[in-house]
Amino acid sequence: MIDLPGLFLTFEGVDGGGKSSQMRLLVDRLRALGHTVVINIEPGGTRIGKQIRSILLEAANHDLSPTSELLLFFASRAQAIDEVILPALRAGHIVVSDRFTDSTMVYQGYGRNLGPDTVRHLDRIACRGLKPALTLCLDMDVEAGLARARARNTEGGATETRLDDESLVFHHKVREAYHILATEEPNRIQLIDASRTIEEVAANIWQLVEPLINRLPRS
Amino acid sequence: MIDLPGLFLTFEGVDGGGKSSQMRLLVDRLRALGHTVVINIEPGGTRIGKQIRSILLEAANHDLSPTSELLLFFASRAQAIDEVILPALRAGHIVVSDRFTDSTMVYQGYGRNLGPDTVRHLDRIACRGLKPALTLCLDMDVEAGLARARARNTEGGATETRLDDESLVFHHKVREAYHILATEEPNRIQLIDASRTIEEVAANIWQLVEPLINRLPRS
Repeated sequence: MIDLPGLFLTFEGVDGGGKSSQMRLLVDRLRALGHTVVINIEPGGTRIGKQIRSILLEAANHDLSPTSELLLFFASRAQAIDEVILPALRAGHIVVSDRFTDSTMVYQGYGRNLGPDTVRHLDRIACRGLKPALTLCLDMDVEAGLARARARNTEGGATETRLDDESLVFHHKVREAYHILATEEPNRIQLIDASRTIEEVAANIWQLVEPLINRLPRS
Repeated sequence: MIDLPGLFLTFEGVDGGGKSSQMRLLVDRLRALGHTVVINIEPGGTRIGKQIRSILLEAANHDLSPTSELLLFFASRAQAIDEVILPALRAGHIVVSDRFTDSTMVYQGYGRNLGPDTVRHLDRIACRGLKPALTLCLDMDVEAGLARARARNTEGGATETRLDDESLVFHHKVREAYHILATEEPNRIQLIDASRTIEEVAANIWQLVEPLINRLPRS
């Protein structure tokens, strides 16, 4: 594991769990305290990552092979690490990432049965020892989460729907896999009950993040 | 190693060695004998591979990180294997690929110092045991080859020049790496002196390929 002066936080969870809203609330709160916060979104947190993202999420690419998909996720991640995450952590900043390797582990490793070992091997090559200090996993009922995600996509007229068009069985496997990861790494991965109000979830997240930021510089 | 009824041949070598011309001559000759030949070009042998290729070869992507580049090459390869190469080999056809893992080994593993072990790990994940039966590596003086490749690019007004704009030192490392691979796998990888006439090189290649095709079906 790499030891750098900054703090690396990631958000994880099934679709519709309120990941983006909670991430925004946390980032605002950290910035209000004077911290420099760098946001990374996976896949696609960089200019090149966005090009990779468009291949991954384009609905027309339904024939993307599972192994190719897996490698594309890590290609986007490797670019974000070199271009955004490592420089920010070296400078002592806070990096908050919307998804990271845990997503690939649950969606591709478990969901698509590519196997956790394959994902771990790729993580070693792409991330070179970089791990989040804390992973906030928004956990909620799969059906309820999907209903929320679908309503949002329909409203927005989204075309990036390839990964959302998965079967219910797949999403249940994904949620179970998050629970497995949380059992394997109970200190890093915190399951957060996302069925509560936005305010309650935000308070829960703040309880977990606050003890980690006191040693960090503020501007 | 996967054993399939078809025959998998790859062309390798430094730029300007006449790879594409020799590949075309070989494919024409095999087809004239009644064989079904499927051509794969790396990166980019599939519709999705072309989207990946455009990220890899776009001159504007000079900030592509070496690890991300490596993963993109294997993503394109994994897609080609699942969509094109394995189905053709299972059907007993001949697959001829313009570059394959050996290219990634010499350009990224050795040329960019990402290390042969990393490339071997990725090969295991992306190619799942698939190896060429014979690799025809067109070998020639680096300076002479680059001069030919540059003349071709200037004529064509090419914009896919990112990988050609490398230093001479890099290309020398790449050629040396091909020689290392040929020493490690002398039966599979054949170094072919590409400084000779097109006809002489084609005759040399035919000598190597002919013994492998007799067991294959013809239409």
